[in-house]
Amino acid sequence: MLRSCTAGLRSLWALRGRPEGAPRLSTDLQPARRLFSTEKVIHKDWALPNPSWSKDFKLLFDQFMKKCEDGSWERLPSYKHRSTQESEDSKTNFFDPKLVEEERLSQVQLFTRSFEDGLGFEYVIFKNNDEKRTVCLFQGGPYLQGIPGLLHGGAMATMIDIALGSCTGEAIMTANLNINFKRPVPLCSVVVINSQLDKLEGRKLFLSCNVRSVDEKTLYSEATGLFIKLNPEKRST
Amino acid sequence: MLRSCTAGLRSLWALRGRPEGAPRLSTDLQPARRLFSTEKVIHKDWALPNPSWSKDFKLLFDQFMKKCEDGSWERLPSYKHRSTQESEDSKTNFFDPKLVEEERLSQVQLFTRSFEDGLGFEYVIFKNNDEKRTVCLFQGGPYLQGIPGLLHGGAMATMIDIALGSCTGEAIMTANLNINFKRPVPLCSVVVINSQLDKLEGRKLFLSCNVRSVDEKTLYSEATGLFIKLNPEKRST
Repeated sequence: MLRSCTAGLRSLWALRGRPEGAPRLSTDLQPARRLFSTEKVIHKDWALPNPSWSKDFKLLFDQFMKKCEDGSWERLPSYKHRSTQESEDSKTNFFDPKLVEEERLSQVQLFTRSFEDGLGFEYVIFKNNDEKRTVCLFQGGPYLQGIPGLLHGGAMATMIDIALGSCTGEAIMTANLNINFKRPVPLCSVVVINSQLDKLEGRKLFLSCNVRSVDEKTLYSEATGLFIKLNPEKRST
Repeated sequence: MLRSCTAGLRSLWALRGRPEGAPRLSTDLQPARRLFSTEKVIHKDWALPNPSWSKDFKLLFDQFMKKCEDGSWERLPSYKHRSTQESEDSKTNFFDPKLVEEERLSQVQLFTRSFEDGLGFEYVIFKNNDEKRTVCLFQGGPYLQGIPGLLHGGAMATMIDIALGSCTGEAIMTANLNINFKRPVPLCSVVVINSQLDKLEGRKLFLSCNVRSVDEKTLYSEATGLFIKLNPEKRST
């Protein structure tokens, strides 16, 4: 963790300049030694079981993997770094292509994959392409705490944003998130986020989801999202 | 970072049981050696400048500290761990008091203070008690990335949740967050979140905020929040 943190800060400072007064980074943590120095680590798929996953989590994972066998469902892989296509899309759409390009090259990582196994966001998303819906299995670790013993609302909002966005295979931006938090989620419990595409209007995607306990008896949250396609003419639904 | 991660996982496993198949933690990382073993570290105030803060950030911080001199504004301190009062409130209100108590004792930390200096959420909140409003200065680090070069919407939602909640001095829970993301926030830039209490109806607090660039020219987001007081009879506004 220390190494990857240092690499992140190093690449940021390379881009923005080292803040005045900031200590120089230790010389024994050269870029060549950093955590993401090999293709193998960069392309690791994080949406697979690790020892921090609870029994419930692994059981549900296995059930959905079974559903994938006939091709009706697929497991979406998850990487610390976004795809080249996404980088291209964001370069096309935003105001600072140089920044985007340099950030991509410096391998600054995705927010939800910034934690060590089990401490932060543990999740996997399964997609049903015909039904335009996804199921996200999520276990929020001890570093995502809000009120003592409970998941932070911001961590839940983050997963909802990702789960909703996973219903499309497109480059999109969140324009609106509207979340009703109905019950607090106990830290380290597993929740199931069911998301679906409700409507498509030009570049606008209207999505909704609910967050429930594994036994489906507890409704934790409901949310809607409006997402905007970044490059509607370049890629089709 | 490694030590605190391990301590977090250790205290979690003590509570929930070590997941089947999870490796035992190294014996050279005993609780006595963990990062939060001293009162001094536990009570460190994180809402103060560190070397990762940009020039803009420090300049704005100094301006608001000046405003604090006549007592009209106050800087809110920020700790990795919630106050005893908050723990008591959450014990009273939620379904698993044992969990809450044990989590508090095990010093599992607050989501937004889980990162090393400069990598995650850098923020400070100033409050104007007479006007029931706060100003949050926020610099999102390289570990909060969404689309390459840009802050993750979930990280923005997290800070909005915290900024809105800071307008009251009470124990509250988020019931609704409605966020309009108008423009993406460049990674590592500083933004200013202006929040205010719009209405109070019994236990319901209606709040709103906007997120702008330091020069106020760019409006990044607007949001409303509905929060619920946890113990209205125990504590007054």
